[in-house]
Amino acid sequence: METLAEKILSGDEVAAARLMRAIDDDLPMAAEELRKLYKYTGNAFIIGVTGSPGVGKSTLVDALITGFRKRNMTVGVVAVDPTSPFTGGALLGDRVRMGNHATDKGVFIRSLASRGWTGGLSRATTSVIHVLDAMKKDIILVEAVGSGQGEVDISRVSDTTIVVLSPGAGDEIQMMKAGILETADVYVVNKADKDGAENLRVQLESMCSMKDRKSEEWNPCILMTQAYTGKGVDEVISALLQHRDFMVKNGDIKKRHLQQARLELKDAAEYALRKRITSVLESAYIEQLANNLMEKKVDPYTAADEVMSKALSSRKPRKTV
Amino acid sequence: METLAEKILSGDEVAAARLMRAIDDDLPMAAEELRKLYKYTGNAFIIGVTGSPGVGKSTLVDALITGFRKRNMTVGVVAVDPTSPFTGGALLGDRVRMGNHATDKGVFIRSLASRGWTGGLSRATTSVIHVLDAMKKDIILVEAVGSGQGEVDISRVSDTTIVVLSPGAGDEIQMMKAGILETADVYVVNKADKDGAENLRVQLESMCSMKDRKSEEWNPCILMTQAYTGKGVDEVISALLQHRDFMVKNGDIKKRHLQQARLELKDAAEYALRKRITSVLESAYIEQLANNLMEKKVDPYTAADEVMSKALSSRKPRKTV
Repeated sequence: METLAEKILSGDEVAAARLMRAIDDDLPMAAEELRKLYKYTGNAFIIGVTGSPGVGKSTLVDALITGFRKRNMTVGVVAVDPTSPFTGGALLGDRVRMGNHATDKGVFIRSLASRGWTGGLSRATTSVIHVLDAMKKDIILVEAVGSGQGEVDISRVSDTTIVVLSPGAGDEIQMMKAGILETADVYVVNKADKDGAENLRVQLESMCSMKDRKSEEWNPCILMTQAYTGKGVDEVISALLQHRDFMVKNGDIKKRHLQQARLELKDAAEYALRKRITSVLESAYIEQLANNLMEKKVDPYTAADEVMSKALSSRKPRKTV
Repeated sequence: METLAEKILSGDEVAAARLMRAIDDDLPMAAEELRKLYKYTGNAFIIGVTGSPGVGKSTLVDALITGFRKRNMTVGVVAVDPTSPFTGGALLGDRVRMGNHATDKGVFIRSLASRGWTGGLSRATTSVIHVLDAMKKDIILVEAVGSGQGEVDISRVSDTTIVVLSPGAGDEIQMMKAGILETADVYVVNKADKDGAENLRVQLESMCSMKDRKSEEWNPCILMTQAYTGKGVDEVISALLQHRDFMVKNGDIKKRHLQQARLELKDAAEYALRKRITSVLESAYIEQLANNLMEKKVDPYTAADEVMSKALSSRKPRKTV
């Protein structure tokens, strides 16, 4: 019997879909299979696409898929944007675009449920990226909303980050406050035919020029697109590949990979501990503790100490994540 | 020497501000003081005010403060909304309203930095609520953005929840998807003089009537306000107090308090574990592990097991949260 991991490595898409489902459902077997896949990862070029709802992220992702396919590169997509048509846009009657690539074996699209937003999502995203990577996709596009608060910081899981803006969205201040704008390697002003697009470009340019940058540093490009018609998308692809070459040459790609490894380690360790504490918190004695808390017989900090002691004393054998 | 907690209990506002600052900065002494205050909490009526940016949450909060003060009730405010003028609205030149109550000893306003958004914020919010509660504020207003993804679920720390909407914001679908609309005990349609307000009210009404509700259940009110002029705000206050009486009578308030205790216990326990793991992750050996990960010498799951073993073996004496 072949394992899921072996099947995936030999190109079985159904097996890949099953593992991704298991990741999304947080099944224990997912970690076992990922363990086996991990050493086959690290070859794909991971591109994050972020921006507020409505700026046209999904349309741009769609156009990028088409563009990379024309260059004979295979593409994987992870959509972690709850407003994305790839994810759940059915509500908005907008799943059409996903269909554009349904019959193309060189494209694999996977969306992630929003259930895990707090904490778990960046872990699940990274895991799905690994699967796509092991499937030997050349390019992995990660689409995530980035309007400001609490979202997945896509730049931490990507080799390069596109921040998409559009005229009239009026969220530049929010994004600047949240530090999203800063994460861009490539800015895309989408809906470039609309009023205010040129103005937005000038604003971004002046923001970029304000930043004190060393001469050997990458200077973020600002590109104009009309993703819906495909206009300007080729230039975006060129800029992305140029950025990759730049990072390979100056060694930045290695630094980013190390940073990704650090983050993943942290996520995995936190997850393991969280599992441990959940198993304690789900036990019956927690109700008693919550009752004592409500009746002010104990304070939450002392109670947390108790839970912690219990979690630490219920040591399980290692290797069972 | 009086402790901070003792000073706060005897009405010292400077001491309260100091403790809140320590909570926001996540200093260890904060937990010690909160431990002492905890048994004096549980008397305030905690009202969550949520809604998307721009609907007028802060203006409503401001008007509610004025309204409760007219009824001779003291008021505490926690603003966990990064776009709130109470928090950081200086950028938008809009800190004016906060000044309305600056000289009123019956009002205490505290904002929380957005730094802790992922995970830590609901804990910090709860802690500040406890301090305001121990300060014997009758009413505690908690203002938080709730546009959809990853934000603090304000209904979990509040006794009653107001969801604020305004015509033209167009975020009803987002809020519905995120389950925010469902959390309301009181809906406020603000900017009721604007086009579309009546339409919004009708939509909310039809949504409420769709829900199968038992006869003894609270039926959320839908109220129209122009918070800026104060119009309709008295009716909101009446509805809030009515909801409190309703919950006291049917015992729901106790259920909500128990649920709050459960959540706080979970947050506190997770926090304690997170601290533990951070101390391990900050050690030098983690760099080695991240390097091994990047070079695919180890997979993240096995590495996480290692971190976990290390965290569990470095047991500290109890009571040091």
